[in-house]
Formats: sequence, C-alpha cells, structure tokens
Amino acid sequence: MNSESAEIITAAVLVIGDEILSGRTKDQNIGHIAERLTEIGIDLREVRVVPDDEPVIVDALNALRSRYTYVFTTGGIGPTHDDITADAVAKAFGVGIDHDPRAVALLSEIFPAASLNEARMRMARLPDGSDLIVNTVSKAPGFRIGNVHVMAGVPKIMHAMLDEVLPTLRTGPKVLSETILANAKEGEIGTPLGDIQAAYPSASIGSYPFQNEAGYNTNIVVRSRDPEVLAQAASDVRSMLAAIWESRGQ
Amino acid sequence: MNSESAEIITAAVLVIGDEILSGRTKDQNIGHIAERLTEIGIDLREVRVVPDDEPVIVDALNALRSRYTYVFTTGGIGPTHDDITADAVAKAFGVGIDHDPRAVALLSEIFPAASLNEARMRMARLPDGSDLIVNTVSKAPGFRIGNVHVMAGVPKIMHAMLDEVLPTLRTGPKVLSETILANAKEGEIGTPLGDIQAAYPSASIGSYPFQNEAGYNTNIVVRSRDPEVLAQAASDVRSMLAAIWESRGQ
Repeated sequence: MNSESAEIITAAVLVIGDEILSGRTKDQNIGHIAERLTEIGIDLREVRVVPDDEPVIVDALNALRSRYTYVFTTGGIGPTHDDITADAVAKAFGVGIDHDPRAVALLSEIFPAASLNEARMRMARLPDGSDLIVNTVSKAPGFRIGNVHVMAGVPKIMHAMLDEVLPTLRTGPKVLSETILANAKEGEIGTPLGDIQAAYPSASIGSYPFQNEAGYNTNIVVRSRDPEVLAQAASDVRSMLAAIWESRGQ
Repeated sequence: MNSESAEIITAAVLVIGDEILSGRTKDQNIGHIAERLTEIGIDLREVRVVPDDEPVIVDALNALRSRYTYVFTTGGIGPTHDDITADAVAKAFGVGIDHDPRAVALLSEIFPAASLNEARMRMARLPDGSDLIVNTVSKAPGFRIGNVHVMAGVPKIMHAMLDEVLPTLRTGPKVLSETILANAKEGEIGTPLGDIQAAYPSASIGSYPFQNEAGYNTNIVVRSRDPEVLAQAASDVRSMLAAIWESRGQ
C-alpha cells in the first residue's frame, strides 16, 4: 500500500540505451511510467535518455537521484556485454558489485545448471545493498538501491517490474485533471485562457492543439491538487468558451 | 546540402512540456528526430524532457548547448500562456525578445488583421538574433539561435520544421549498421558476442531481446563508421551464430 502524505513526491526517469538514441528502437516506457506515477500521486519532473556509456550514466544518475524523491531507470540489465547499468549504478553509489545469492537462486529456477552460463550469471550481479525487484515475466530481477529503481527495458518486463515497485512508494496528493474540448483554435482562446490561469495560480492550465478531419481544435487541460480549485477553474474555462462560441453566432 | 566532415557531430533533444511528464501526451518526436539525425551522420547523444518551467528549461538548455554541436527543442511555441519556450531560450542566451517583423509578416499571411490578436502575436516573439525556421504546415515559424533549433511539439509541424533544418546542418561520417536475427536467446550468445565486441573496439555491438509468438529471440545490431570493420564484425557474428545453431543439432 502506498502511504500518502501532504508532501510532494517527485521522480525522474533515466532511459539507458544506444538503440533509443539511434532511433532503432522507439521508447515505449516513458509514457507508461509517466501515466502510472501521475495516477498514484507522484510528480514526474524530468526524463533523460543516455547511451550505454558508463561515465555518462553515472553522471546522469547522480544528478537525478540527488534532485528527486525517486529515480526509475530502464534498460541495460540483460546478459550481454552492452548491459552495463548495474555496474554504472554501483559506481554512482560508490559501492561494490557481485553475484547476489537471491538473484542466483531465481535464475537457477529457470536455467538448469548447464545453461546458467557466465552471460546469464551477469544478470545476478547487483550493487551491494540492493533489494530485488521481482520479475514475474522472465525471472531475472531488477533491483532497488537507495531511491533508485533499476528496471528492464523490454516494455512487458518493465511493466511487470513497475507493478511490483509502485505499491512500495510514498505518494503525495494526486494531481486531479479535467480535459475540456475547446471547439476553438488555440489562437482564439489564448488571451482569455491566460487570464484564467492568472486567476488560479495553484492550478495549471495547459492548452494542446490538435488537428483532425474537422480541422484545428484544442484540448484544454486544467490540473490541480485541490478539487475545488479544479472545479472553479474548469467552470471559468467553460464560461469563457461559451462566450467565444456565442460571439461567433453574432 | 549538408557538409560532411571527418569530425563527429553531436546533438541533444530537449522536449518541453508538462503533458509529456504527466503521461497525457505520449511523445512521438524523440524517435523521429533520432532516426533522421542518424541517417545524415549526426550522433544523438542525449535527450531530456522537462516541464513548462522557465528556470528548469534555461538550465537544461544551457547544459545541453554547451555540450553538443546542436540542440533541438520541441514544444512550447504556440499562442497560449503555457508556451514559454521562446522566453526561456532568450533568457538562456542572455538576449532580449520581441516581435520579429519577418514572423509578423508570416502570421499576417494567414490571419486577417482582426484575428491577429495578442495571443497569436505571441508566436512572432523571437529572441534577438534568431533566424526563422519555415513552417510549411501552419506558418507560425520555429527559430534557430546559435546552435539551438526551436521547433513545434505537434508532430506533423515538427516533422516539417525538421525537414527545413536538416539540410542546413554540418554532418559527420554516418554510422553504418547491420541487423542480424540471432534465432537464439540473449543468454546463449552473451559470452561469445562479448568476445567479438572486444575484438572490434571501433564497432558497437548491441543485443536486443524481443518476444513474439515463437518465443524469445534476439536482434544483434552491429554499428560502425567504417564499412570494412562493420563487414568483418558482422561476419564474425554470423559465424558465431552458425556454431551455436550447429551445436543444438548435436
């Protein structure tokens, strides 16, 4: 169970992998983690994507873990030479790394001794002081050390690991949101929408243009942790839109 | 036309927008930019996603623009109060910002004077010293200042702006790549694949597991700027795989 407090809980995601930066693999993890964290009341504040390059991973991880309540990494925990996340995390924390008996035991459940080769045993190497993150899909675990959660890059496995991690996290007051279809172009509503934003500094009002068969349109998203502020700001947005629609009829 | 040199040209992407961090909008721009840069011989080295928060944007932009040859930003250049990218870029460069006559002229082409309101005029506010990036989709331009290219967040518009920008960039030697389907699990090939990587330090060999109806499989991607190194390393990978398949038949 999450323990919710009045404190704002923040997070960053660190995506590790040359294949994302080359464009070969399109990331599917950032959006999923973002959505799940928002749902439970954790503010995702930053995402970084870095290559399979140890000093770069170490620097990014140290920057993020000192700045946010939690960090979630994806990628680089498989059995091949380019899987260097565990080593980079150990270096970032300044701790040793070795085969973890709990992780070895998990791998032994799926690999007979003859196939538990050196490469597969790499997946049992964890930084000293880590806790395991259960992998219900393919056994090889992720791990948590300090405020950093290290997960697989394969989306299906990452999703399963995140399911294990989320209930262990502290959460803050959820950001509530309401989406209002403007039936107007962004440029028509920009000035009055800015006035409403100014009137509700504790809400955050976003304006998202899109285009479909019917032409240009806009979604307005009002967000606040306070349900009353949300309701009032959303009501003002609706009145503003009604006035704009009305003025077109004249 | 791109001017290709032996120098390695690097880049970073800065995605700006609360809606990506809340998970409401799933980013579609990172993968596209990554692919296009790789194609023309520019190494994408880092991506960051930050919220609509001026000091945070300024810090990220200054970190990235000092570190890489080029920076590409997406998002936050529309007509509403939450579009603060141009102001943040001006602040990062320590220059003023004002309505740019060239941008005003472009907006005047599509908006009659009566609808070119204060909100829409925001889209003509550019940092001093900027060049315009043509927007063939909806006119409101992006802009370039120094090594920073500021583009829209709406994918269709961003794609069009990137088409304009790419031919103006310096490029380096392209990274060539070959993808080899392993017909093996990652853990079967990890050790010999690491040996091949060690034999070709100027190549970069990645191993990407995936799962389909037939079970677990792996793509091996060999990358190098040198076609001969690429061919030799790829050939060694194929021989290694053939030996593994052969050993299964015994």
